[in-house]
Amino acid sequence: MSSDQEILDIHSQKKGKLEVVSTVKIDSKETLSQVYTPGVGKVCMAIKNDSSKAKELTIAGKMVAVVSDGSAVLGFGNIGPEAALPVMEGKAAIFKEFAGVDAFPICLDTQDTEEIIKTVKLISPNFAAIELEDISAPRCFEIEERLQEELDIPVMHDDQHGTAIVTLAAMMGAIELTKKKGLKIVIVGAGAAGVAITKLLKVSELDINSIKLVDSKGVVAKDRTDLNKYKAEMAELTNQDEAESLEQALIAADIFIGVSAKDLLTQDMIKNMGKNPIILAMANPDPEILPHLAQDAGASIVATGRSDFPNQINNALVYPGVFKGLLESGANSATDEIKLAAARAVFNYHKNDLSIENLLPSILDKKVPELISRAIVEVVRN
Amino acid sequence: MSSDQEILDIHSQKKGKLEVVSTVKIDSKETLSQVYTPGVGKVCMAIKNDSSKAKELTIAGKMVAVVSDGSAVLGFGNIGPEAALPVMEGKAAIFKEFAGVDAFPICLDTQDTEEIIKTVKLISPNFAAIELEDISAPRCFEIEERLQEELDIPVMHDDQHGTAIVTLAAMMGAIELTKKKGLKIVIVGAGAAGVAITKLLKVSELDINSIKLVDSKGVVAKDRTDLNKYKAEMAELTNQDEAESLEQALIAADIFIGVSAKDLLTQDMIKNMGKNPIILAMANPDPEILPHLAQDAGASIVATGRSDFPNQINNALVYPGVFKGLLESGANSATDEIKLAAARAVFNYHKNDLSIENLLPSILDKKVPELISRAIVEVVRN
Repeated sequence: MSSDQEILDIHSQKKGKLEVVSTVKIDSKETLSQVYTPGVGKVCMAIKNDSSKAKELTIAGKMVAVVSDGSAVLGFGNIGPEAALPVMEGKAAIFKEFAGVDAFPICLDTQDTEEIIKTVKLISPNFAAIELEDISAPRCFEIEERLQEELDIPVMHDDQHGTAIVTLAAMMGAIELTKKKGLKIVIVGAGAAGVAITKLLKVSELDINSIKLVDSKGVVAKDRTDLNKYKAEMAELTNQDEAESLEQALIAADIFIGVSAKDLLTQDMIKNMGKNPIILAMANPDPEILPHLAQDAGASIVATGRSDFPNQINNALVYPGVFKGLLESGANSATDEIKLAAARAVFNYHKNDLSIENLLPSILDKKVPELISRAIVEVVRN
Repeated sequence: MSSDQEILDIHSQKKGKLEVVSTVKIDSKETLSQVYTPGVGKVCMAIKNDSSKAKELTIAGKMVAVVSDGSAVLGFGNIGPEAALPVMEGKAAIFKEFAGVDAFPICLDTQDTEEIIKTVKLISPNFAAIELEDISAPRCFEIEERLQEELDIPVMHDDQHGTAIVTLAAMMGAIELTKKKGLKIVIVGAGAAGVAITKLLKVSELDINSIKLVDSKGVVAKDRTDLNKYKAEMAELTNQDEAESLEQALIAADIFIGVSAKDLLTQDMIKNMGKNPIILAMANPDPEILPHLAQDAGASIVATGRSDFPNQINNALVYPGVFKGLLESGANSATDEIKLAAARAVFNYHKNDLSIENLLPSILDKKVPELISRAIVEVVRN
């Protein structure tokens, strides 16, 4: 583990983690007159006469905006746009390093839904896709939906769909290993990630018996009167009539998926689950239960969000490839088919290396973004 | 001269002219955990606890936004944000290549003054300075003023002040060569550039007798009733009581400064100017008069905005150094002293190489941004 000072030094050395460089070496008057006035005028006019040329001739054909309002950053919550910027820079650095995708962080000095939507639309001429990051629920749902409707480029909230894709890939691995069928799944945390995981599981090929989505008040169910629009939709989608507690929901369940908070899952709860349950305890930075405690209570497979335990489930494994695929396929939105193809690509690639301590390929493996991208291109072209 | 196809090829090869790269090679789990979760959390918290740290630890300490609404691009006028993007990318590429300054283009899908101001403010957490580009007058004046007031980072409209600085540097050279005194100056074009040149000349050390600013209706003067707020200020500043025509204004003048339109200056007008006048005919892409015609009519020195004639006056010679200096000095605005220091730095550097066909250093000379920057740092620190 690096010291705090080492980490700060890496960030202060060049003021952040990103540089913007010219793809053209400008070392003669001729080159200068090609990339700048007067030659660049030809490019301006080509776009003026045919606006679709902007995607060929400018960064608008490749650049991803990593947009956040700093309202739900890592485990910290609402720390604002300035303090969120190091994370968004990290996302952009990973984009380039792992998938060759150019991305630029945009941290917005507002947490007003309408202002965020409007601002992203007004800066959209520069970008080929929008990755929303670390925006709190339920605003993240409306912001993503509205931007996807109102822009003709892909808009994807990574905390929702990146997390859902990598979680599904991990589950496919765990189920391959344990051969579980007729799955009873409990998802704890009904924010961005929990809702997106629920939706993706519902359209997946997994053999699912039931999904219960749990928030701080218990199972999200039709008889509850305290649900917002998005949770009410989840009660319908999971077909839960009656509220029950987390403890009740977990009885005889096969899989626990936590995107909630530290220490929320006890050994007693695991003991009441079905035989050899699968525990994905992904709360950051501290999981819902520590891996050794879960194992002692009978879990067959345990995963977390952390890099210092086995089976790290982190959306950084998938988002670079997903956006690479969206850009290369020319898709204008991340459909369910695209998300499922991404999860399958990760699972298939890793199938022969699966073990209970190795559910997913390494986050450093650059083949993963490439394979995800190819799978998406195939889905979009067919 | 490059063919149109060559120019388009340069732009399509990598989709535009910019790449965003990581300053950190991410090739181990340890590095990943420093630039991304969990290590990056230390950086977030350092900024959360002391927001001034954002300038040390993130791109907000170095990144310039090149902002345009595409309303006044090159000689084309209002071509919109998509078609303006190649120019803004070129500006950013020049920033990095000539001055090592990181810059990112932001072309806005609005030409509403209030929306532009609001959007730039909302995205400002990512940036250390704002360069406004190719925004038409008079909106450019209000946008620059308001943003400079409402943000605590430097905001500079390059078409105004970049042009004014490089024009002043060229004039200093021309006056050094011709030893003219008690200057009678006529500036034609009362848009962004004309207004800024007028203001900068008024605070310069040049030995000026009079400045007349001319728009399409004649000299901007106090007795005119058709002036907007900014032109009315110019009538006061130049102390012009009575309107007169361009022809009248030029009689016995020493210097013509054109930031207007093609072929606006005739040989007859030059013949009515003072002896051996200086002609800076900077309309783009076609000057107010062609150099050989101006010379035939008696001009001692002729400059244009073009690279294919001697004496190119282009703000690309100065803006990279000016922003480098603003960033390195920690200045929060581009004051008159800073602009004058920048012009003087260019003039002094080139003083021994001056000739009537060589008023300014080469736009490719990377010492220029360095010297401008140092001069600004000195002004700000004293």
